[in-house]
Amino acid sequence: MTDIPGPRSIIGLDVGGTKTACVEGTWNAQILQRHEVPTRAKLAFELTFPSIVDLVREELAEATRCGRTVVALSVAVGGPLRIREGVLIDPPHLPGWHQVNLKARLAREFPTLPIYIEHDGNAGALAELRFGAGRNRPGLRHLIFLTFGTGIGAGLILNGRLLRGASDTAGEVGHWRLAADGPIGFGKRGSWEGFASGAGLVQLASHMFPDRWRPDTAIRDLVDAILADDADALQVAAQSGRAMGAGIALLMDAFNPQLIVLGSLGVILGERVLRSAREVIAAEALPSALAACEIVPSALGLQIGDVASLMAALTHSSLARKGGR
Amino acid sequence: MTDIPGPRSIIGLDVGGTKTACVEGTWNAQILQRHEVPTRAKLAFELTFPSIVDLVREELAEATRCGRTVVALSVAVGGPLRIREGVLIDPPHLPGWHQVNLKARLAREFPTLPIYIEHDGNAGALAELRFGAGRNRPGLRHLIFLTFGTGIGAGLILNGRLLRGASDTAGEVGHWRLAADGPIGFGKRGSWEGFASGAGLVQLASHMFPDRWRPDTAIRDLVDAILADDADALQVAAQSGRAMGAGIALLMDAFNPQLIVLGSLGVILGERVLRSAREVIAAEALPSALAACEIVPSALGLQIGDVASLMAALTHSSLARKGGR
Repeated sequence: MTDIPGPRSIIGLDVGGTKTACVEGTWNAQILQRHEVPTRAKLAFELTFPSIVDLVREELAEATRCGRTVVALSVAVGGPLRIREGVLIDPPHLPGWHQVNLKARLAREFPTLPIYIEHDGNAGALAELRFGAGRNRPGLRHLIFLTFGTGIGAGLILNGRLLRGASDTAGEVGHWRLAADGPIGFGKRGSWEGFASGAGLVQLASHMFPDRWRPDTAIRDLVDAILADDADALQVAAQSGRAMGAGIALLMDAFNPQLIVLGSLGVILGERVLRSAREVIAAEALPSALAACEIVPSALGLQIGDVASLMAALTHSSLARKGGR
Repeated sequence: MTDIPGPRSIIGLDVGGTKTACVEGTWNAQILQRHEVPTRAKLAFELTFPSIVDLVREELAEATRCGRTVVALSVAVGGPLRIREGVLIDPPHLPGWHQVNLKARLAREFPTLPIYIEHDGNAGALAELRFGAGRNRPGLRHLIFLTFGTGIGAGLILNGRLLRGASDTAGEVGHWRLAADGPIGFGKRGSWEGFASGAGLVQLASHMFPDRWRPDTAIRDLVDAILADDADALQVAAQSGRAMGAGIALLMDAFNPQLIVLGSLGVILGERVLRSAREVIAAEALPSALAACEIVPSALGLQIGDVASLMAALTHSSLARKGGR
């Protein structure tokens, strides 16, 4: 009946500033297997890439053992990048990965698999629209997804379509300056990413409480302190939340979205960051834009990265036509 | 052959914070006649509306005398507004016009004419795309139009389509806070409109040179001083330009447009404001977004408002089908 034996699946790579996850998923974004390695983002790409290739090979072998055929390799990675070519330009949270042609490198290792790459913010927005917050909202046409992981960037669904922009950098709002002074993020002092991202939280903490946290404190340690309701850590979260609110208010005035979805740390920290964000948003955003917009943590929860990694392939027209069962 | 005798035309109203223009235009946006009245924006709508109705009546009579049939009334007006209903919410530069159902009021006066209303920023973007900067750029899909008149707002063409957003307020970037302190615009201190709009220029001038300009100085007087290369006025223009640059850099990072078009004062003041804006943009915007984007004054020049006023009708599908000759 078909020339591909057994059920078909996709391998997804979610390349973050802290870890890289490799998943095998179905057309319905069900995750069949999952493994991860630390990204070691400051090391040269050549030193990290082999461990990622190994993960993909292991999952391909496991898929074969289980009688499934992997038909594509799908990647979500932070920008700026040239999406169609799969070339990373200078992603701030992958300093060792600048000017890497990730698509070409993967193609050399896996010559029989078509490879699709998408910006992680865009992929997150597509994942939420189709499998997350958008699932039970048929009228949803304007959605903004904020990655809020090690860095921060936005995926923009406007008029029901993904906006990549003229050179694939639409949504790089982590680069927005929110204040003349402040922590450095995305190479810029006082940027949104400097104030409100995993890396930004650590910088803010080391600035506000230099005796307790240092600029090289692991994000996880600070996050654990916030979740333990440590008073100092909660102050850091609130301060970061206020900057998050200032950024979200700008998004609301510019895009007038129906829904803003927060990934990763938005899921983990929730109202510990969002409470102060909401206060600033209420004071800053246009009332009519504010009234039209809901702000929620990802409906896919911590699975958002896994599902997002599959979206480059799942939304690619040629593959989507072959999809389903 | 047709049930409408003679050539058909559209009456367009461009309602600005300083003046209201009434034009009669063709399907190709050729302007056949034009009149204007001061808007007297601080007076109650009821006191201004009759003079606008008179203008429309006179142009209708003139069209009839010339054997043309006016088939629609088209309006461009500043937001926030509910576009489909034609209700102005609280436009900052029309304080006397809050909560006015402009469409219903016009319909009562002109019951036989279909009435179409669009946000002036949106209308400007549509005008530039079709009859201005977009005319010789067939690949143009991401265009931002900045009104830069008495106030400032953006019209957003993204993926080739107008973005109105969830509640018709997309593009209200004049409300963006650019600094913690600064002139008030759009009801907010330190806003883009406070720094870089006609009204903002006057505020800035009265703050920087209180002995020369006052908060109630006419915008035109300050503009004339800038055009005469008055040293103080040029300092005001440069300062306003830097804020304009900060705002445009945010737009570039968020939307990654191919083209940003400045209307009204952008046409009149040109590089006197844009020079300092470009310096800030070069320092602030993502290099890949910066490289992808051109910034130009309106290709329609000072006619942009007239053409924009026709766009609500010209882009309305039911009317567009009847268009042409």
